[in-house]
Parts: sequence; C-alpha cells; structure tokens
Amino acid sequence: MNGLSRKRYLELTEPTEEDCRSSWQRIKDALEETFREIESEQGKQSGVTASVQKKQPGSIEAGQEKQSGGIVSGCEKQSCTIEPALGFLQTLYPVCEDSAWKVTVSMVAVDNGWKAVRLEAGDTTKQHYGYCVDLGSTTVVMRLIDCARGRSLGQVSVNNRQIAWGADILTRIFYCKDHPERLKELTDATRASLAEAMEALRQKTGVGPEECLCMTMAGNAAMMHFFYGLDPFCVFASPYALRAGQVPAYSGKELGLPFSGMVYSYPARANYLGGDIVSGVLACGMDKADELGIFLDIGTNGELVIGNKEFLLCGAGAAGPALEGGVVKTGMRAEPGAVFGVKLENGSFQLQVIGGEAPRGICGSGIVDLLAELFLHGWVDIRGKFVPQASESIQWRQEEQEQAVEYAPGLWFYQSDITEFIRTKAAAHTMVEYLMGQVGLSMDHIGKFHVAGAFGTFLDKESAVAVGLYPDIERQRIVSEGNASLEGAQYWLLHRQAGQRIKEILEKMEYVQFAAVDDFLRMMTAAQALPHTDLERYPTVKQKLKL
Amino acid sequence: MNGLSRKRYLELTEPTEEDCRSSWQRIKDALEETFREIESEQGKQSGVTASVQKKQPGSIEAGQEKQSGGIVSGCEKQSCTIEPALGFLQTLYPVCEDSAWKVTVSMVAVDNGWKAVRLEAGDTTKQHYGYCVDLGSTTVVMRLIDCARGRSLGQVSVNNRQIAWGADILTRIFYCKDHPERLKELTDATRASLAEAMEALRQKTGVGPEECLCMTMAGNAAMMHFFYGLDPFCVFASPYALRAGQVPAYSGKELGLPFSGMVYSYPARANYLGGDIVSGVLACGMDKADELGIFLDIGTNGELVIGNKEFLLCGAGAAGPALEGGVVKTGMRAEPGAVFGVKLENGSFQLQVIGGEAPRGICGSGIVDLLAELFLHGWVDIRGKFVPQASESIQWRQEEQEQAVEYAPGLWFYQSDITEFIRTKAAAHTMVEYLMGQVGLSMDHIGKFHVAGAFGTFLDKESAVAVGLYPDIERQRIVSEGNASLEGAQYWLLHRQAGQRIKEILEKMEYVQFAAVDDFLRMMTAAQALPHTDLERYPTVKQKLKL
Repeated sequence: MNGLSRKRYLELTEPTEEDCRSSWQRIKDALEETFREIESEQGKQSGVTASVQKKQPGSIEAGQEKQSGGIVSGCEKQSCTIEPALGFLQTLYPVCEDSAWKVTVSMVAVDNGWKAVRLEAGDTTKQHYGYCVDLGSTTVVMRLIDCARGRSLGQVSVNNRQIAWGADILTRIFYCKDHPERLKELTDATRASLAEAMEALRQKTGVGPEECLCMTMAGNAAMMHFFYGLDPFCVFASPYALRAGQVPAYSGKELGLPFSGMVYSYPARANYLGGDIVSGVLACGMDKADELGIFLDIGTNGELVIGNKEFLLCGAGAAGPALEGGVVKTGMRAEPGAVFGVKLENGSFQLQVIGGEAPRGICGSGIVDLLAELFLHGWVDIRGKFVPQASESIQWRQEEQEQAVEYAPGLWFYQSDITEFIRTKAAAHTMVEYLMGQVGLSMDHIGKFHVAGAFGTFLDKESAVAVGLYPDIERQRIVSEGNASLEGAQYWLLHRQAGQRIKEILEKMEYVQFAAVDDFLRMMTAAQALPHTDLERYPTVKQKLKL
Repeated sequence: MNGLSRKRYLELTEPTEEDCRSSWQRIKDALEETFREIESEQGKQSGVTASVQKKQPGSIEAGQEKQSGGIVSGCEKQSCTIEPALGFLQTLYPVCEDSAWKVTVSMVAVDNGWKAVRLEAGDTTKQHYGYCVDLGSTTVVMRLIDCARGRSLGQVSVNNRQIAWGADILTRIFYCKDHPERLKELTDATRASLAEAMEALRQKTGVGPEECLCMTMAGNAAMMHFFYGLDPFCVFASPYALRAGQVPAYSGKELGLPFSGMVYSYPARANYLGGDIVSGVLACGMDKADELGIFLDIGTNGELVIGNKEFLLCGAGAAGPALEGGVVKTGMRAEPGAVFGVKLENGSFQLQVIGGEAPRGICGSGIVDLLAELFLHGWVDIRGKFVPQASESIQWRQEEQEQAVEYAPGLWFYQSDITEFIRTKAAAHTMVEYLMGQVGLSMDHIGKFHVAGAFGTFLDKESAVAVGLYPDIERQRIVSEGNASLEGAQYWLLHRQAGQRIKEILEKMEYVQFAAVDDFLRMMTAAQALPHTDLERYPTVKQKLKL
C-alpha cells in the first residue's frame, strides 16, 4: 500500500559514544533507508536497470527520470523530506529505550514529503486505519479503512446536521450571509456530523479516531466552504468565484474534529463542480481511459463530465428536484414506504415498496419506472400527455384541475408531475447533447456512461432509457458507479499518487457555463419529449413501442 | 529584505464571470508573479541573461542552475509552494471585498516554500516585525526586529525562570529525570520566560506578539530540550545522544507561546555544541572566511571552533565556573558591586566596580585583570605561586591555611583561587592548542580570534593575553563578538538563505571528543603556568616581564 499514511517498523541500533546520532536522526536515517529500498524496487519494476540505479543513487537526474515517468509520486525520492510532529519528538523518550529501539513510526503525507506523527513500541504496522468521507448536503457517509490491507471495515451514514438550518443549501447560505457567528454554527454542525460518524464507526468496528491517521473527503463546494468555515455565499452568487477551491491538508484538531490525523479534501473545479465530481471522475477512471466516457451525477443539481485521458469537458446545471421526488406531488425521499419500482401488467400497477410497507409516496427511481411504463403502454404519448382513451384509470381530477392516474391506493400521478419531470430530464439530456456536440461526437462514440449517486444505483436502466434520461446505448456500457465521490476518497486515502491525478484532472477540466450558451434553450425544447422529439436516437425504445 | 517572513502588498483584479478564480487562487497567482519578478531580478544580477530566463521561464533546468549556483534559496523558484493557513482562508471574506482587493499578505517560511498566515486591508508592508532570542540557561535575551528595515527596535533580558529549579543545569536535569510532569514544569517555565520578554518588549516598543510573524532562537542543547519538552538527561549522560538535535519550525501556539507566528531554532551539532555555537559561528562569518579563524565561547563550559570556509573543527569541555566568578572565594556574577577592572599602581590596587558601589566581590574580567597585574608585577610567578617577598600585601591567612592578597577592603584573593583559575584557562588553552595541532597549524596562521559571550565583551585583551587565556597575536585580530548567539539568530530572521548555511555548517563541523584524546592531560599540564611553561609563545608578555 502506498497511501496518504504509512507505518514502518524499524529495528534501530542503540546509540553509542561512537554513533551518538540523536534518537530522531536515527529514526529519520532508517526511514530514508526504507524509502530508498522502495525506490530501488520500483526502479527495477519500471525497467530502470539496477546498475543505472547504483551509478547515480542520489543524483538529481535519476530522481527526475522517475518522477517525469510518473512511476513514483515524487515523495519516495531520496530528497523527500521527513519532519517530526512536536508530539512525536516528545514521545521519543522513553518509547525508544523501553522498546529496545524496536519501534513503529506512523507518517502522514505533507506537501513535499512526510510528517512523522506517532511512535509506538514494537511492530504495530498491522493496526493502520484511516477514514474516507462523502460530505453530502443531506447525508454524511463515512468509511473506516484498514490501510494495511486496503479494505473497508465498515460504513455509516449520518444526517448532515446542517439540515436543522434548512433542508436546502440556499436557505443555509442565506442564513449565514454576513453573519460570521452564524457561519460558525453551520461549521460546527458539519464537524459534529463527522464526529458522530466517527463514533458510530467506533461502535461498529471498535476502532476510534485516535487510531486513525488520515481522512480524505469529497463534497460539493458549498459543503467544503461550510466545513472549513469559509463564507459560502459566493457559491451561488455571481461572479461565482469561490473563497478557495483547493485547500491544503490540515490536522483534524485544527478543524475541530476529535481526530489528530490529517484531513485531505478533493478540490473544486468551479462553484457547481465540486470535489465530489472530481473524486467521482477519478473513481471511474475516466481520466485514464482511452475510450470516451460520460460521467453523470443528477440530484437537485446535475453535474456532467465528458472525456477521456486526452480531455475533460464539464458542466453543471440546476436539474430541479424532480428526480429526488421533490416536485412530484406524492414524491418522497427513498425511505421506507416509498415506491421505488413499478410494472404495468394487464392494466394494473405492480409496485415495489422500500421496507415492504404500504406505499406512502414515490421516490426518484419509482417515478422513472412509472413514467416509462405509462409511455411504453401508450397511456402517455411522446409529448408526455396522458392519452385518456388508453385506460379508464386515467381520470380527470376535479380538485387539481388536471388528469392523473392512481398508481397506488390514494396516490395519484399527475399531468403536471410528468411535465415537471420531462423538463428535468430534458435539462440533463441537453447538457450531455451539448457537450457531445462541442467535441463533435455522437453517442456511438461513447465507451462508458457512468451514473453516479444513489439515484443511479436504484434506477432501472431500461426505464431510464425509455424516458430519455439515459442514452440508448448497449446496456452494459451504462455503469452505475454508486457513491463515486466516496469511492474516489477511498482511492486517494490508499494511493498517495492520486494527488498528482487530481491535479491533472483539475487542469484538464474545461468548464462550460450552460447559462451562456445561446442554443441551450432550443436544444432543451427538442428534448422535452419521451424519449426525445427525434425517436431515431432511441432505436430500442422505438422497437418496444412497435410491440 | 529576504527573511523568514515576507509581506507583500497586492492590487488584485476583482473577480468577474469570465475570470472567476477563487479569492485564494487570485492571491496565490499574484504572489507567484512577484516571486517570478524577484527571481528574474536576481537572475539578472547574477549574470544569467534575461534571454535565457525568457527561453525557459519555468523549466526545471533553469531552476536548478540557479539553485546549484546558490543564488536563490530554492524558495523563490517558480515551483516553490505557497499554502494558506486555515485562519488565512477564513479572513478572505470580507477583507478582499472591503479593501477593493488591495491587500497585504504576510507569509512565513516553511519547508519548501511559504505559508500565508495573515491578510490585511491596504498596504501594511511597513509594519513587519519579528523576534530573535538567545535562550541562555541564566538569561533570556530577546530583540524585537523591524523586518521591513532590518534593524532592532529594542532588546530585553529576563531571567530564565528555570533558575527556580536550580541555578545550574544539572540540578534541573536531575529534577526532571523520568518525571514527565516535572519536565513539563520546566518547559512551561521556559515558555513563561519568553512570554515575559515579549511583554517587556511590548512595554518598550508598543509592538506585541500578535504583530510578529517569526521568531528565531539559539540556545544550548539542554535549553532546547527543555523548551521543546524533550527529556534532557541525554545531554549530560553517556552516550550523549540527544533526543533531537534539529527540530522543524513549529507555530508559537503549538509551543505554548502567546504568539501565533513560527518559531525556528538553530540546530545542535552535538550535546555540548548547541545551536548557540552554530549561530555564533554563522554570525562571525567564519564559515565563509578565507583566513583561518578561532571561535571561543567560555563560560561554565568552553566551546571552541577552528576553521574557515573549507573546514570547521570543534570541541567542547567543562571549563569550570572559574571565569564566571564561581570558584574564586570572593567571586560573583557581573552585578553591581562586582570588581570588573583592576590596576596595580605603586603597590596599591585601583579598582573599577560595577555601579560605582563599594566592592562586594570580583567577577570574571576582574579576576583576569587582577591575576595579570599580580603576575606582571612579579607578585605571582610563572607557576602561579605567590612571591611573598615581592610585597608586604601578600600575607599568610591563618584561617584559610594559605597565602592571599587583599585586593579591596576585606576582600582577599587566595593561592587556591589562582590555582583554580589556571586550571580553567589551561583547559581552554589546550582545547585551542589541540585543535590547531590537529590541522597542523600554529597561531601565526590565525586570521581572527573571535571571543563570544558577555565575558569576552568586558575582558581586557592585554590581561587575557598576559595570563595566557588569549593567544599572543596582534590585538586587532582578537575580536569580541558580544552575544554572537543572538546576532546569529537575528541574521537568520532577516536572511532566509541562512538556512542553507546552517545546514552546511552542521555538515562541515567535525566534533572532537577531548575526553578521548590521550595527549590532552599532558598538554594541559604544560599550559598550567602564566602565561604558559613555554614563554616563547607569548613574546609581548615576555617583553613586558623584562620591563
């Protein structure tokens, strides 16, 4: 493992009057020796012959060759620095003497090297832990990672306590505007959520924050501003210049966490393209792929990246809360009682409900399923209008002054719900279409269509294609990436050299302001149909409609 | 000024939708621009033509050429990093907006670049302060430096509060042994002394610690161990391996000081060769000199360095407290009432007393003066024995069973005082002689004889030569350096590149363990005379004796 933290077991020689290097120097020299061994090992693996290595063991040329070759992260070079934390120095005595100079040193990655942060007697390299976090505006998801074995030991989700100041981010931001003491409340709430997650992980795994060395985090720009105590008004107000898009690693203590390790956050590319997206792109490996990929994360906002190892074009837009059940009248979050799957068989609805309870409403994946079924069975036409003659179930609802269908006892799906949904999916579709047009490519060129987020995880691919939310490509090329933001955070924790990739992704990402695109509205209008005004783009849907 | 801290006034452009870089990025880009300007300026000065500069503005080759040429400190290269402190990021808003983007950024030197620590509206570059400190075991001397103009604004001395745990260092060290809670008392006392000095400087100058960016410090290894909270027993116990000889820069806050700037300490070369000596050598410029120099700091311990830009040979030994008035029966510190100057005229003593008071005792410079006068007037012979027939003043003191002379009413100078003093000066002399012998050189090769410390400041050169404490060389080559440890600290504060010199000095210093030298005792015996058994080495003294 070559992660952001390292543990090294050292068997040191005791000091003598002849070799009276200081305790710290003794440890430093031994650590540098192990780094040289790694370097030499990696040199061999990469085809640099051992003889060349020996000729110029510490020469600048040798170091550079490797660095520019991207083989090592630039921090295993001989010249890399290792500095001790003050607390580390203070434990040198008596740990070294008491352990007969057999010690384990814990290190965390800092700018151009390592910081030694903990000294333990004996070999404790197997006890090596860290955290990775997806800091969402609603939910904070945290994993405890066994860094020695590179695997998760447990995952927890807790509510983001910011919710107490408003369910949506804008309310929270307006609350803080020009009130530093209120911003502090939100910052403290964010930190308390993280502390709660750490505690929950301790309950689950027995490993607490005092045993963890590093934490990696990904979240959107507003969440990062709240967490670091930076005024977030800039995220949503012109000219959309953040206070900071990229922050260095700070210690958990400095950040008000019950955790003395270092905290590393994914940088934001722009106000609406946060570290969560950068993390997701890295997790999907799009930035390393030969083939063209699309990365889509739709929630209240839609974020989109198109590209491969050559380029990354990206954009973001307000998708509207339709997909999170926010606009549909009986919509709800994916909680117990929510309909998440729908089939229309012989004129009646077969429902799947979270928790197996009586249905209380419908969540995003249920909405897509329902609409796809209505459309494929001809109850809704290509313009998204109910076809009343198709079924007796479609009724005129006097009180709401519109047509609707009862998909579950007492739960109705309305014409206005459909219209709202189509607007959302048209926005998402148009973002994709526009960026593809910018690079002069069609869907035939797409290798993988990565869908990030919980929404993608539960969504039925066929339904998503049928309503035109996903493109009509081979189904195995549509990949649900789950919580890609969290996966990217885990990857960084375990692979220090991801830092370099993150930098490259940021530099490569070209950000398109859709608001500034003249054609955008016209294109969106064309996409306001099921699946699209141009049915030829959806051959499998056309096929199904024929049946 | 190119010191450990920097202040830069920036006139930034306001963000627009076209240029929506974050506030921090905007500042970072502007800072890097000013760094490039400095680099280019320095490149021109050093003869690197502007055209070459332009051809490869950011290339690694260009950077290296300069670095290896020693022109820049490696931190004004384009590649040098600038990272923001968390507190800095949190003040970006509203300082940038309120000041119409005209701000001053304060930076402090970190490992491979700069850390931005403070943001102020408008141009405050003229208010730029720092501290330098000589952390002595008895006295803490601190200066407030105007870093914009490179000059001292005031200096204070306060007692080192460790004295409450013992006047000598060994008592303090034994008190702490294997009692971490006691070590903490001593560490806190050290820090309280520094805080007291800061407060005294505020009283004196109106500038408090909240306005200071950096502090440089020099002290012996024991003092550094106490200050950083490291068990100091190792300093005085075999195998004399320190806990740490070199510590990185830490923030004043982390070190328990009322000061959020960074604290940089001179590293120790060995247990008895602390940062105060490294600092002194740098202050004297011995490490850059063509001619051979000797650096001597005598107090309770004697530290000695011989060398030039090619080599530095050094050693240390217990000189005994004789020179600080500690062994002589009527000896005292250089305080009011202490005799500090003596002339013997027509058989009677002319005394200079500190504060012009009635004499209460005699301090180091007084002892040397007194002994030199006794010797030059034949009252004491070359073996350091009283010559009773030379004067009636030399009397047999019944109660002490030895001969003595009354140099002031009721104050006697004894035969045993002389013997003790000669032992001390023989030790100092022999250290010099031994190291000179090691490099095969005689006193004729010496360019400068640097004497550090308060002792050197008040000592009469002629007297010191007469008793054989100083070599008999041209008097203008004997230079009293004052508090060289403090001067070196000030130099570093104002010259970041001194960091490189310090590293080189440490690497160059070869440490001789006098205890391991077979010849040492024999040589010391030969030096136990006034000025030396071999009078030919002291031609001017021989001349005077003839008169």
